[in-house]
Amino acid sequence: MGSALAAAFLERGHPTTVWNRSQDKARPLADRGARAAATPEEALAASPLIVACVRDYEALYSVLDPVAGHLAGKVLVNLTSGSPEQAREAVAWAGSHGADYLDGAIMTTPPGVGSPDMMFLYSGAHTVFEAHRPALAALGDPLHLGTDPGLASLYDAALLGLMWATMTGWLHGTALVGAEDAAEGTAEKTAARAFTPLAIRWLTAVAGFLATYAPQVDAGRYPGDDATVDIQIAAIDHLIHAAAARGIDNALPELLKSAMERAKAAGHGNDSYASVIEVLKNPAVRK
Amino acid sequence: MGSALAAAFLERGHPTTVWNRSQDKARPLADRGARAAATPEEALAASPLIVACVRDYEALYSVLDPVAGHLAGKVLVNLTSGSPEQAREAVAWAGSHGADYLDGAIMTTPPGVGSPDMMFLYSGAHTVFEAHRPALAALGDPLHLGTDPGLASLYDAALLGLMWATMTGWLHGTALVGAEDAAEGTAEKTAARAFTPLAIRWLTAVAGFLATYAPQVDAGRYPGDDATVDIQIAAIDHLIHAAAARGIDNALPELLKSAMERAKAAGHGNDSYASVIEVLKNPAVRK
Repeated sequence: MGSALAAAFLERGHPTTVWNRSQDKARPLADRGARAAATPEEALAASPLIVACVRDYEALYSVLDPVAGHLAGKVLVNLTSGSPEQAREAVAWAGSHGADYLDGAIMTTPPGVGSPDMMFLYSGAHTVFEAHRPALAALGDPLHLGTDPGLASLYDAALLGLMWATMTGWLHGTALVGAEDAAEGTAEKTAARAFTPLAIRWLTAVAGFLATYAPQVDAGRYPGDDATVDIQIAAIDHLIHAAAARGIDNALPELLKSAMERAKAAGHGNDSYASVIEVLKNPAVRK
Repeated sequence: MGSALAAAFLERGHPTTVWNRSQDKARPLADRGARAAATPEEALAASPLIVACVRDYEALYSVLDPVAGHLAGKVLVNLTSGSPEQAREAVAWAGSHGADYLDGAIMTTPPGVGSPDMMFLYSGAHTVFEAHRPALAALGDPLHLGTDPGLASLYDAALLGLMWATMTGWLHGTALVGAEDAAEGTAEKTAARAFTPLAIRWLTAVAGFLATYAPQVDAGRYPGDDATVDIQIAAIDHLIHAAAARGIDNALPELLKSAMERAKAAGHGNDSYASVIEVLKNPAVRK
């Protein structure tokens, strides 16, 4: 990921100095015009804007703590994955060394870095973000979420959760249409490459459902005009039976059905699927 | 849903006869030009193409069995939700009464019926589908999946599974960004209406991952060039901790983590997320 970030800066003509624990990772970037720093101090000294992206906060501090005296007057943009709490600690740590701090989250894989379609989430002081927005735009579309430095990590976690759920639902469906029906023995196996364009098109329709349901969540009222939890519970049994007949692991649909049944038990049988959020929230937090 | 289907036919100028157990549902359609049949026989007699959409197969047979003698020479398009097995039984049942049969699945909610963006899935004899494609195009974009009549139901189940997983992942993320952090007490609560546009935009990136992973699934090889299962396991802990700190139900991310850990245990730690399909498949089916 570090190489992709540096390459995106170079691509847009930004003078870029790189440092990595493994010197050989810097070489291809040096060939593209990057200055390869021999030490972290040298990298910090080279630019007003420092972008850090390492495995975790432990690795971040192990690199930066020994050279923190060189951070004064700099802006540290930390794209390392972590928790909101770690981001809040980092802004205090950076401040104690005289540096401004933005926390960030990269919402793409390395091949997507540099594309203006891809979201880069930032949180922290608005003035710091605005001052460096033009440079950060080299990496992707920079979005400022708010001044609480924990927001980028929090959104990152929430969006990755959506990604894992979506990818696992897709894999389950792909396994289902790709399986042989043991009882029927029919050759109805569909390739992932045939099923996936329909799945992707269907996600566009699902995105429309999310747009419909978001105001329901904010209002705490979930009119089931389009499809009720009761109807979804009846429909998910078809999925569970078809998957069971084909020997597919049903843990995911069973969990989803259980969430729907808890929503029904809480009085949401005639409400929309958005009402399932009520059983995901902490009862103590729920009004 | 029946009213939406009839309205879509009327909208495109198709002479349409409607019947419903509740006569009052037919009245608004009659005002828009539909002929309201007094009995199921009368409805069957009116048109060469019969579209049925009721709650389940039990309801379907309770309406059609007594009047099955009127089906000879007709085409029955059954949009009732059910299993692939039920669809295969229905084609045999229709055939025994001299009727052609297509099984179908409606991939939208009633407000989406009539839009060419929305997918209607069909399976059954190709010639029957082609003969009636122009009329079926009034309802949405008609896609023929194959001659096995069970395919529409199977794809329906697979796509709904993707939808429930995606919607629940979105609700979990929405609950997360909308919650107060009990320990911090900070007012970082984000409205669903603010989070959802980012979630929808993120789904576009996720769709790109699915397109990348589909050929990996078909090949049974999952190179982890973009992000490995090991990296995802490290990242999901941030989600689980952030959600736990805010009192959000963690059953879904815990299940997703468990699937990733089973993939890792099966030797896929350095592979892409697509390798998780190996642990969803029946070991007996897996090669």
